[in-house]
Order: sequence, then C-alpha cells, then structure tokens
Amino acid sequence: ACLIGMADSLEDILTVRNQETRKPKVAKGTQDYTPIQMAIRKQVMRAIADVFERHGAVQIDTPVFELKETLMGKYGEDQKLIYDLKDQGGEQLSLRYDLTVPFARFCALGNVEKIKRYHIGKVYRRDEPQLAKGRFREFYQCDFDIAGTYDTMLPDAEVITVFCEILDQFFPNGGFQVKINHRKLLDAIMEVCGVPQQKFRPICSAIDKLDKEPWDNVKREMIDEKGLREEVADRIGEYVVLKGRPKEMIERLDTMTNLLKSTSAQTALSEMKLLVDYVTALGVIDRLCLDLSLARGLEYYTGVIYEAVTLSGESGIGSVGGGGRYDHLVGMFAGKDIPAVGVSIGIERVFAAIESKFGLKGDASSAAASETATDKKKGGKSGGATRDGTGSQQQQQSSEVHSVVRDAATDVLICTIGDNLLLERLAMARELWDAGIACEFVYVEKPKLNKQLNHASDNKIPLAVIMGEDELSKGVVKVRFLTHGPPAPQEAPAADPTSSSNGVNTATTQ
Amino acid sequence: ACLIGMADSLEDILTVRNQETRKPKVAKGTQDYTPIQMAIRKQVMRAIADVFERHGAVQIDTPVFELKETLMGKYGEDQKLIYDLKDQGGEQLSLRYDLTVPFARFCALGNVEKIKRYHIGKVYRRDEPQLAKGRFREFYQCDFDIAGTYDTMLPDAEVITVFCEILDQFFPNGGFQVKINHRKLLDAIMEVCGVPQQKFRPICSAIDKLDKEPWDNVKREMIDEKGLREEVADRIGEYVVLKGRPKEMIERLDTMTNLLKSTSAQTALSEMKLLVDYVTALGVIDRLCLDLSLARGLEYYTGVIYEAVTLSGESGIGSVGGGGRYDHLVGMFAGKDIPAVGVSIGIERVFAAIESKFGLKGDASSAAASETATDKKKGGKSGGATRDGTGSQQQQQSSEVHSVVRDAATDVLICTIGDNLLLERLAMARELWDAGIACEFVYVEKPKLNKQLNHASDNKIPLAVIMGEDELSKGVVKVRFLTHGPPAPQEAPAADPTSSSNGVNTATTQ
Repeated sequence: ACLIGMADSLEDILTVRNQETRKPKVAKGTQDYTPIQMAIRKQVMRAIADVFERHGAVQIDTPVFELKETLMGKYGEDQKLIYDLKDQGGEQLSLRYDLTVPFARFCALGNVEKIKRYHIGKVYRRDEPQLAKGRFREFYQCDFDIAGTYDTMLPDAEVITVFCEILDQFFPNGGFQVKINHRKLLDAIMEVCGVPQQKFRPICSAIDKLDKEPWDNVKREMIDEKGLREEVADRIGEYVVLKGRPKEMIERLDTMTNLLKSTSAQTALSEMKLLVDYVTALGVIDRLCLDLSLARGLEYYTGVIYEAVTLSGESGIGSVGGGGRYDHLVGMFAGKDIPAVGVSIGIERVFAAIESKFGLKGDASSAAASETATDKKKGGKSGGATRDGTGSQQQQQSSEVHSVVRDAATDVLICTIGDNLLLERLAMARELWDAGIACEFVYVEKPKLNKQLNHASDNKIPLAVIMGEDELSKGVVKVRFLTHGPPAPQEAPAADPTSSSNGVNTATTQ
Repeated sequence: ACLIGMADSLEDILTVRNQETRKPKVAKGTQDYTPIQMAIRKQVMRAIADVFERHGAVQIDTPVFELKETLMGKYGEDQKLIYDLKDQGGEQLSLRYDLTVPFARFCALGNVEKIKRYHIGKVYRRDEPQLAKGRFREFYQCDFDIAGTYDTMLPDAEVITVFCEILDQFFPNGGFQVKINHRKLLDAIMEVCGVPQQKFRPICSAIDKLDKEPWDNVKREMIDEKGLREEVADRIGEYVVLKGRPKEMIERLDTMTNLLKSTSAQTALSEMKLLVDYVTALGVIDRLCLDLSLARGLEYYTGVIYEAVTLSGESGIGSVGGGGRYDHLVGMFAGKDIPAVGVSIGIERVFAAIESKFGLKGDASSAAASETATDKKKGGKSGGATRDGTGSQQQQQSSEVHSVVRDAATDVLICTIGDNLLLERLAMARELWDAGIACEFVYVEKPKLNKQLNHASDNKIPLAVIMGEDELSKGVVKVRFLTHGPPAPQEAPAADPTSSSNGVNTATTQ
C-alpha cells in the first residue's frame, strides 16, 4: 500500500511535470507585445524616428546576429552577457549586444567614410531580468550616430541636441537631466590623484557606481578591491562630488591649476567649452549638468560622454539612455579609424513610463508572472497571461488607455439586417476598402444586428453602415455614428441595441 | 635559405590569415540593409501594413527566440533548418523559423479566443542561401492571421482578399496568380487512388514538388522512394494535372462521382463553393486558380491552402507568399483548439523585384560577394562591400533610384557666408527644427559656401538657407531653391557654386 501510494504520488509528479512542459511559455526575460503595447510602441518609435529624420539621418539595419569575433573585446566585463548561437557546423555567431558595435562593423565593411544614421532594433543581454522595472533580455534600442572626420564637437553637439529633443517629448517640463562628462577629464583626475595608468579602467568602473552607491562604498571598492592607497581615493573623492551647470563648472575647473597640468584636462576643457557654446546656440544647454562622477561602463568611449536620468515622479526608471564619442571602434574592424559619436535611447523605459501613466501597470505584473513561470527554481506557478487586447482581458484595462490608443484602425463596421445579405455585406466591404476606408464585418452568415453592434462596441469602431432589404431596394444605406461609453453596469437592461446599455450610443442616425 | 624561405612564406600565410580574420564580415546568408534599401523597405512595409490595418488587424510582436520545445514537431523535415542557441546554463532556445508557430504559442499563452492580427518580423532558416534570388538566412515575413471560431470560410475569404490586395500593389495588371487547393481534397484524391493513410504526408510532399519538377520525376519519387504501386501513382497523376478557374474546376469536380464517395472530398468541395462565392463578392476571384497539384510543405495545414506566384517578367522570383487554414496548431499549446487561417507574404522577394526594377541589382551582387567572403571553403576573396548611400559608392547607383527614393529627409541646408557665423548657423537650425522642418548644417567651423552647396547636392537637399553678415544686419536670410541634375562631366569648370557644374542648379534666388 505504501509502495502503491508512492507510485501514485510519483505519477502525480510526473503528470504535473509533463503538463508544465507543455504549457506555453516565452523564454526567460522576454515578452510578447500585445496590440495595445504595439500601438504605443509604434507611436513612440515614430516620434523618435521623426526627430532623427528632422536631423537628416538615414536609417540602416543589420542582422540580429554577428560573428562572435565581431563582438569580442568590446564590452569589458559585460561580455559574459552575450547570447551565443549553438555551433551547428559553420560560423560562430552571437546575438548583438547593442547597435553600436554592429554599426562600426557596418561602416568598416562598407568602407563608409561618413554617415549620419539611425537604427531602431532589438538587442540581447543575458542579464538578470527585472521585468517590473522594464529590464528585459530582449529589448529595443534607438540609436543615432554620426561617423566621419569633422570639426571638433560639432557632431557631438548635434547628437546631444537630438537626445534632448527626444527626451523633451516624453519627459517634458524639466522631467529629465543629461549628465555630461569627458573621458579625458576623468583620465586627468586619476592622473593628478596618482592612480597608476593600468588602474584607470577599473577605477573608472568603480566611479561609475556613484549614481547608485554612496561614496564610502565606492571608496572601499577602490581601496580593498582595486588596491588604491586611501589618500589617492580621498583625492579622487574631492573631484567626483563636483557637479553643476556646465558654464559654472567650467569656470571652476579653469581655476584648478593642479588638474590643468594634465594635457588631457586641457584638451577636455577646451572641448567642453566649445560644446557648451554650441549646445547653447542649439537651445538645449539648460538640460545639461556637468557631473564629474559620470564614467559610463563601456570600454570604447574616448571623448565626451553623457547619460540621461528622469527627474519626475517615476522613481526607479533611472537612466533612459546615453552615449558618447568613440573614435577607435571602427578602426578595430577597418584599416583606419573613423571618428564617431552617438547616443542610444533606452526606449523600453520610455514605454514603461507611458504604460504606467496610462494605467497599464497590469502589463508589468503579467510580465512578471511570466518570468516566474519560466523560472525553474520557483517552478509550479502558472501565469504568464499575456493580454491580447481583443479578448475578455481587454475589459480590465483602464478605459482611459483606449480613449488615447485604439488597438485597431477600423473605422466602419458593415452590418446587415435580415438573413440573406451576406454577399451584399462583402461587396460593400470591397467598395469601402477600394476607397481606402478601414472596415470590417462579423464572420457570421446570419448575424443579428445586436451582435454586430456589440462587435463595434467591443472594438471601439466609430461608424456602422447598416443595410436591410429596404435600403437595398432604395439603393441606400444607413450610416450610424456610434459613441462608445464606459462599460454599462451589469444590472442594466441589455435588449435594445440602440440604447447605451451595451456601451453603444447612437449619436446620429441618418 | 630554404628554411628561411619557408618561414617567410609561412609568415605570409599567417599574416594573410590574420588579416582575413580581422576583416569585417557579416554572418553567412545575412545582409546589412543600406539607407536606400531601408527607404524602399519602409515604403513597402508601410503599404502592406496599411492593407492589414484597413482590414481591422491589430499588430503584435513576439520574441525573436522561443523555447526549443515550442518549435519542435511543427515543420516536418525543415526542422533541421532551425537555429539553436548555445546552452549557456538555462533554457534551450531557438530562433523563430516563421511567425505562425509563435503566433499560435502567443494565442495559447494569452488565452486569446479570437484575434485578427498582423506581424512583420524577421525569421531565421539555416538553408543554403541564394542571395541573387533574394533567399537569405535572415529575412522578413509579413503575416496576417485570423484566429477564432467563425462561420465557414468567411475568415478564409478575407485572408485571401488581403493577400490579393497586397500583391495587386506590387505586381499589378495580372502580374501574379494565387493557386488554391484544399488539404481535404488532396486527402480524398490519395484515398480514392489507393494510397495507404500513413503515406498521405510523404506523398503530399512529393506532389508539392510539381511546381519545380516534371511529373515523371515526381512519379519516380512516389514509386521508388515512397513505395507506391505504379498504377496508384498513375491514378494520382490524372488528378494533379487538373487546374483552372475555380468555378469551372468546381463544376468539373462535381461530376467526379468516384472522388465524391470520399466525405473529405464532399467537405472540401462544399467549402470551396462557399469560398468562391465569397471571394467573388470580395472582388478577387479572377486572381485565383484552383490547382490540384498545390500541396504546401508544412504539416499543420488542415483546410484551404494557397500560394502566390508572379507571372510577369521577373523569372525566378517564383512564390511570393502563401498560407492556409490550421485548426489544430493553437491546440498543440493550449488545452483546446482555436481554429485559425492566415497568410505569410515573402516580402524579400518583393524587395528584390523592386530593387531590380530600380536598377539596384548592384546590391544583389555585393551581397553575393559578402556571401563569398564568409564562405570559408572559397576563402581568400575580399568583398562584401556594403554601400552606405552617403559615401562615394552612392555615385555608382542609378540616378533613377534617387529620383524615386531619397535616403534622408533633409529639406533645408543652413549655409553661412564668412568665417564667424557658426553659432548663428546653429541657432537657425534650432528655429527650423522647432518649426518641424528637417534641416542640416555642415560640421565645419568655417566652411566655404561652395562646400556647403556641394553637401546639398550630394544629399539631394532641395533648399538652402544662406546667411552672411549682410543678411544678419538686415534681419533676413536668402532662400535658394536647388535642383539637382545628374553628376556633371569631370572636365567641366567647377568654380562658381551657382552654376550647374557641380550638380547644383539655382532655380530661384530671393
């Protein structure tokens, strides 16, 4: 009996396992985009592309995977987050980690001497996902880069201007700030503080943590892990707390005679002065903050660097993009260097902010549920319900969203009264499509008018064309303007399709 | 000396090898999209999405990779073409092979009972690339599918209508034909011919080759490889040669009393009759051809199937898309079946046709060169030049393309005369951008007007705003309308920027 009991529970376990295996899942850290999410994404990406195009950028695209060797040695420690493809007998391939390295490879392969391009595409990082914060393993980036040999700081100033113009749209009224710094200024600081040259990079990456951690932690890391003497760390500490309006900061730096002994500092400062003049003329100076603690993680930056943070209520969104100048990356692929500067917009965080604003928080939680379902350690939980925007779960969404973004573009529902007008319904659809009008009909041979109008209501279709034998004999149709109110309370009578009880209000009938 | 000579040549070999390794490459069978290609792609995809949206479809997106188990058992023999990701300690993942299986998984995961959706995205197949024919390992598909339980053949008719409307745009005036057939009709044919049920699928896939191979080859495959008796194959041969206008074909099938003993045939025929009525009302019947040799490779089809071929001059383009009904695919992921029908547009072949039309054939050859460069067996050849559309190689493109598609959207170049007006140039750009006008300036501190107008000419920018001290003191600017003729012959004098010698013609100066 005991053995039989064990067998039973084994079978239970196996059955549950089996069901779990067959349950549909998405890969850890990824998400489906539902129609309502896609509608938002399309608008956001269109708005961003409009800015890029207004600045004369062309668009390119590159394959989602690159030769593994193309990506190696570009990302420092984060290289471990790259997705590799299985060796199936051919080249060693990896999914792209960002759009910048593929862009440099593109320029080198095509012998492109100069280009101002944008690229909107998904990138891949095997990082620990934090779906509630909009951090995924597959996510969109929107990149704008200018490659070519030009006069100092002019392309840099335009990239920063583009960055600010885009963020102005999504975080208006001072809702964001762009921190700027210069890699050569950081080098100079480390130099005059007495950091040995081979420790510049590790110390730089410690400094980079100052936006999340207090100075004492960073100082401990410099001393205990990176082996700096305490007085060297303290000297660094005096510099990296400095931040402020670029003009005032530059005036202050101009008085630091010790720092200015470094030729790196002199170069950085004269470039920063030019940049400030240019972005002042370009009208975005008041979004900038010169912050000596900004270091940026990636290895390839060589000049000015920047990163935007949101300042408004949405705490936890943090960085919404950044970039800088990288003068030697193309040269890693081509025979010669092509200087370049660019910015990458972290559009997922813009989406997250907009979804949160429109009360689409449910998405984050359903995405989080899907993460749980795919995390084997936590196992057993069902979840991962992805809303489709057309089914029953749509009803749970805030009606405010739907007043702003419609899933589908249908303007007219073609309805018939009576049982024998199916082909007439189809022919009418043909006429409207030919006229460029977005229309639909229900996929029912003999539908009641009530059901047809419910379909219009469910999908927020604003117009109904209604035909019966009567209209057809006269060669006319009825056009009804529908307004879709909030869902009616359940206890309301639901009989008359022309009443508002099913959410369809007849505004006009002609 | 001999040894030293050997060492020298060894070093040569190693050096060459090393250079080859460092030479920038794209993965085999993939391509970069240059600005001019992207401009074409955007227009084509926009035109396709417009049709989808006019039919009330919503858009979704899914991750580029799925759990490997999601894709297994859906593609028959072609399963071997799936790209797997490396096991890096987590789930087993594969790149999507099409958009249909991810769509079914999406419906199952989200409990979507009904949806009319489109999806434009890249899919991945480890097939032998034929770049000149537009066959890549990474390529776009545009899918339109209707899932849900509806009255017979109504969604099917709309899908076919959408298919025809899209193809009408790219292959007008009868430039294409949609072959249709029904899986149950094929089943019935095999049944009455005496094919054992377990051989239905293999025989079906033999029949599918009839668009490329003569009957005799297919017959031999049926007999020699698939083990049919010759008289059975001959009986099949009598059916699969039949094709013609749907109405006439249906009348003919209606007289085949032997075939109609099969209930599958009866079902298929009654569904085909409905379909013909519906697509007649929907105005696309004359694009259809009922072709009993159409079988479609994929396992999951259960009802009507279709495939479009081009009929116009571009030989070798062949199939430009296809689809059908698949009533059990969602059920493979969810507890219950959700019937569905859809179509997939092979948009790469549309691109190839358009590029060929606009004289962009050079792209295919440069893509082919890149294939060679990445094919280790052929090694040694350089190549893979990818045009950037902004550099010198742009000049090689047919000017016809540029008269149709501009890479960048820049409408105005802001020019200054004299050496001290850089900040004024930037401030003017700010004004135009704020007014929503696409403008640029050259990234040179003290540019000659000549150089500035050359930039306008190179980039086909139609307007120049010109400012000098004179204009600034009067508070005005000059606006010059530029027309860009073909590149001037090299021997022409190139001094006066207002002459047409550098390709810039002054149409009006105010």
